[in-house]
Amino acid sequence: MSQSVVVIYSGGMDSFTLLHRARRDGYRVHAISFDYGQRHVRELTAARAVCEREGIPHRTVDLAGLGGLLSGSALTDDTPVPEGHYEEDTMKATVVPNRNMILLSLATGYAVTVGADRVWFGAHGGDHAIYPDCRPEFVEKMDAACRVANYEPVQVEAPYLALDKTEILSEGLAMGLDYSQTWTCYNGREAACGRCGSCVERLEAFAHHGVSDPLPYETRHVPEA
Amino acid sequence: MSQSVVVIYSGGMDSFTLLHRARRDGYRVHAISFDYGQRHVRELTAARAVCEREGIPHRTVDLAGLGGLLSGSALTDDTPVPEGHYEEDTMKATVVPNRNMILLSLATGYAVTVGADRVWFGAHGGDHAIYPDCRPEFVEKMDAACRVANYEPVQVEAPYLALDKTEILSEGLAMGLDYSQTWTCYNGREAACGRCGSCVERLEAFAHHGVSDPLPYETRHVPEA
Repeated sequence: MSQSVVVIYSGGMDSFTLLHRARRDGYRVHAISFDYGQRHVRELTAARAVCEREGIPHRTVDLAGLGGLLSGSALTDDTPVPEGHYEEDTMKATVVPNRNMILLSLATGYAVTVGADRVWFGAHGGDHAIYPDCRPEFVEKMDAACRVANYEPVQVEAPYLALDKTEILSEGLAMGLDYSQTWTCYNGREAACGRCGSCVERLEAFAHHGVSDPLPYETRHVPEA
Repeated sequence: MSQSVVVIYSGGMDSFTLLHRARRDGYRVHAISFDYGQRHVRELTAARAVCEREGIPHRTVDLAGLGGLLSGSALTDDTPVPEGHYEEDTMKATVVPNRNMILLSLATGYAVTVGADRVWFGAHGGDHAIYPDCRPEFVEKMDAACRVANYEPVQVEAPYLALDKTEILSEGLAMGLDYSQTWTCYNGREAACGRCGSCVERLEAFAHHGVSDPLPYETRHVPEA
């Protein structure tokens, strides 16, 4: 019998690749997405469409009730989204307090419910310097906690922890994935803005591989390295 | 300047005592309660009334959106609440998957938001044998994770971990607390049922101290020891 994994799936590039990696590796996959009032709700629409097409059981958890608990972040507030590269100062403005622990604790509860013995999430190398809850130390300690929190031990793994976005894309392209099925832009408009940190990083990763990003963009602004 | 603590406050006896212990110890206290569709919503009403009277900042977080994620438990489902002593078999039916990790992760996010450096919750000795997420091992591992999950380290403490309910009540009676301001019964009727595991344990603790529980009960059924 194949093992089961719950994949935290935002609808963005990294977790889209992770979802397909789990299937490639033979896991029975359960996808879980979180709606915490983020502006890029188009990610969630993309996530739903992919799971429906692929026949992957998918739950979207509405965290809107958390309201002000998760305030203080540009992802959910009315403050402008920083443009350009992800850099320490501007990116701190997009931090939701304790976000990954909250999402992992819910995904672990879901894993217990569906009988999965592990949870995967898409933290990756590019995040380390910025988000404390994307660092190896955090993943290790959450793994330790999730193994003892329930009668059924759950492992927490971040398979892309040592990779950067370019390397993740490399893995996805090798699997033949269609990245038009993903959404990354922090602004939720018709086309991706091409200017926010998230767009810039994505465009750079595609440029590195000499591949054209299949998403529509308002502008494709890749700053000089 | 005094330190701040976020206390997870259900409105029940243990967290009511913990809340007052925090004030006694000189902390600035923020209380947080969770509405996850539990039947004993009267606990939450009691929590709100206490915080209002005492001038303690208090947030109730609506987790109803989690819906089926937390299903499989007698606390939120329509299956009957087990009666009598808390015993291994019947109590497993009242387990919400990964509940304490979920609540602690949210309380830790709240601590970061309000600038508190620790989270207290009321896990106690009587719970150890039953709930994995009330054991010392779990508290230690959550503490380790919460210290590294954000730019601001948060400590997780369960001050009553080594005490049983009788000892907690002893501390509260010594502080002169009025337990008519708490609610414990798993059935949300006008008077406490006096028969569910929660009522029985509470009545036993009062009986041990030779004190009459000031709550109204339908019946005061304390089984022979």
